[in-house]
Amino acid sequence: MNVGASRESDEIIAMIMKLTEMPEVISFAGGLPDGELFPIEEMKKVTKEVLESDGRNALQYSTTQGIRELREVIAEQIMKEAGVDTTADNLVITCGSQQALEFSGRLFLDEGDVVICESPSYLGAITAFQPYGPKFVEVKMDEHGMDMVDLEEKLRNNPNTKFIYTVPDFQNPTGITLIVERRKRMVELAEKYDVMILEDNPYGNLLFEGERLPAIKSFDKNERVIYHGTFSKIFCPGLRIGWVCAAEEIVNKYLLIKQSVDLQTNTMAQKETALYMNMYDIKDNVNKIKEVYKRRRDLMVKTLKEELPESCSYTNPAGGLFIWVTLPEELDASKVLEKAMEYRVGFVPGIAFYPNGGHRNNFRLNFSSMKDELIVEGVKRLGQVLRSF
Amino acid sequence: MNVGASRESDEIIAMIMKLTEMPEVISFAGGLPDGELFPIEEMKKVTKEVLESDGRNALQYSTTQGIRELREVIAEQIMKEAGVDTTADNLVITCGSQQALEFSGRLFLDEGDVVICESPSYLGAITAFQPYGPKFVEVKMDEHGMDMVDLEEKLRNNPNTKFIYTVPDFQNPTGITLIVERRKRMVELAEKYDVMILEDNPYGNLLFEGERLPAIKSFDKNERVIYHGTFSKIFCPGLRIGWVCAAEEIVNKYLLIKQSVDLQTNTMAQKETALYMNMYDIKDNVNKIKEVYKRRRDLMVKTLKEELPESCSYTNPAGGLFIWVTLPEELDASKVLEKAMEYRVGFVPGIAFYPNGGHRNNFRLNFSSMKDELIVEGVKRLGQVLRSF
Repeated sequence: MNVGASRESDEIIAMIMKLTEMPEVISFAGGLPDGELFPIEEMKKVTKEVLESDGRNALQYSTTQGIRELREVIAEQIMKEAGVDTTADNLVITCGSQQALEFSGRLFLDEGDVVICESPSYLGAITAFQPYGPKFVEVKMDEHGMDMVDLEEKLRNNPNTKFIYTVPDFQNPTGITLIVERRKRMVELAEKYDVMILEDNPYGNLLFEGERLPAIKSFDKNERVIYHGTFSKIFCPGLRIGWVCAAEEIVNKYLLIKQSVDLQTNTMAQKETALYMNMYDIKDNVNKIKEVYKRRRDLMVKTLKEELPESCSYTNPAGGLFIWVTLPEELDASKVLEKAMEYRVGFVPGIAFYPNGGHRNNFRLNFSSMKDELIVEGVKRLGQVLRSF
Repeated sequence: MNVGASRESDEIIAMIMKLTEMPEVISFAGGLPDGELFPIEEMKKVTKEVLESDGRNALQYSTTQGIRELREVIAEQIMKEAGVDTTADNLVITCGSQQALEFSGRLFLDEGDVVICESPSYLGAITAFQPYGPKFVEVKMDEHGMDMVDLEEKLRNNPNTKFIYTVPDFQNPTGITLIVERRKRMVELAEKYDVMILEDNPYGNLLFEGERLPAIKSFDKNERVIYHGTFSKIFCPGLRIGWVCAAEEIVNKYLLIKQSVDLQTNTMAQKETALYMNMYDIKDNVNKIKEVYKRRRDLMVKTLKEELPESCSYTNPAGGLFIWVTLPEELDASKVLEKAMEYRVGFVPGIAFYPNGGHRNNFRLNFSSMKDELIVEGVKRLGQVLRSF
């Protein structure tokens, strides 16, 4: 099987790896949650309790689908908050949402099938689908998310589309959120053109202002939508707990895959996550995270406004971890990155997020993992770099 | 992509699932370690220490290859004991050895490629390779493992063989161990016919008597052998920690796969395992396990001798978890299982372990997870069942 298709983004990733090893660099290239916000004291209590009350089961093999108590709290708390009425039987626990993406690629895609996605789209999803050899068809976005007219045209012109892949809330990389009317419309179009929707929603809970929009899956009447969730941005990414929510018939197909590729997800991590959700209110943790990230977004947007040349624009996301910067057409973000490295500041050039390449004048900034003063200093350096072009 | 190829073994698995749900059944069908032997008190100390000293990193994303301290203790302790001189750079941490098998299938196999394996072979490996569409070519075994004359014939007749898959120590399902001369010969043949060897070694440390044989990889001069290891049988399977040991060039290919399919293995579980290995001597834990499993093997072999009709034979493994029973040619183990279920006793019919089917007169018994008195009672029931045929 084809592994690690060579793309220009591989070079960029290499450049970014180099960046992380350079001293005194301020890197906005990552996508890490801030580790200082992890609930370590709570985790100490939780792990002690799990080992004391249920150690033998916590350290033993467990079911492929994931332990029931975890699936129950996900259904009752997280999915409900996303507006999705579901049950533990509709969930499979995965090793993070990256594994959910890989499973979806494996389940639906064969050489030459079409994946329709936002332009730009999430790099990890592109990487997960690519080994199965699909053609990516990108749909235009505006500030309200995927353009539904363009989506319908792409669906009409690509009869072997298997699914629409979308990150509707505070998308990675743009920070853009898909508005409600378009969520409904997307489900209608999926029905009309007989395709599935993969709704990838790692950031939905990290809403800084306004009201949370119901998940696309909440409008799903005929089991067209497969929802991918994760605890990585609202709890602890190192535990690698994600999930798929879908019709039972589809869940059974994911189980066959899970069984053959790694049997099951870490039992202990599942028990810890379930007990944490039952012992504490995860909303308290989410609120703590949101407060810090909101402050950092505000600071980054304010500093971008002050420091970037007027010819540049940027998104102001209502949540999540990322801001998307657009440069004047003639500028190449990869060239800008080379210069930026001299100034000891980094970001991810936008081209990495376009499965078919092109679009050289964008880059992604992360604001979740950086101290306030470094955000200011880093954006100032960026301004200097850009003014030098 | 093809998922969950329908095989007769699927029906058998369904039958065994049914078995596990029946009350008062004595099931030798599983392959679980005995949870009563898990080092729970030590794990309490280890998790507390990890969270206190390094909580932020333990709960955060970490590298795709696996944390260095874990790779170091595996190289220095486990691989060294297997006779393999290697380094942390030659290791990738996986979610159990099932994931290592899946990665190997993904990396080496395309539709129609040949996998050469023991006859019978490990069910989990067959399941992991099958989605990539290989042809399985089975090699005869005797009490000393794979027959090298038959292996060479199969290599000669199958020029598109990608690798030889083998479980050399206390094989699952037969309990048979490959003798040293054949290990050396297998490496020579791999050289001669330009194929790789996948050495899958989950049980090597669980040696009840005699001297541990050096791993096949210890005879590997030209990086032909890829070793798959796991903590599941010597520590805690619920943590899902396995690894691949190979040349750095090959390790890099596994990393590309790991990156795209699930980014990394649970950081916390890696830190816990590494710290456990540094705080305690894992050999003490292994010795505790071996003492119990050896007693159970002795008891099972003794009771088989007393209770089974003379027309049946069985292996007497020098380690591991399994005994393999051979019935008279005319008996079908699946039919025997139907009857056995009435007697409330279970096992896995051997046909599940033959990738090309056939061979209906064998079954596998597990002795690791069953209390002594139940081993005696279960084997007595088996004797009754078999005498009824």
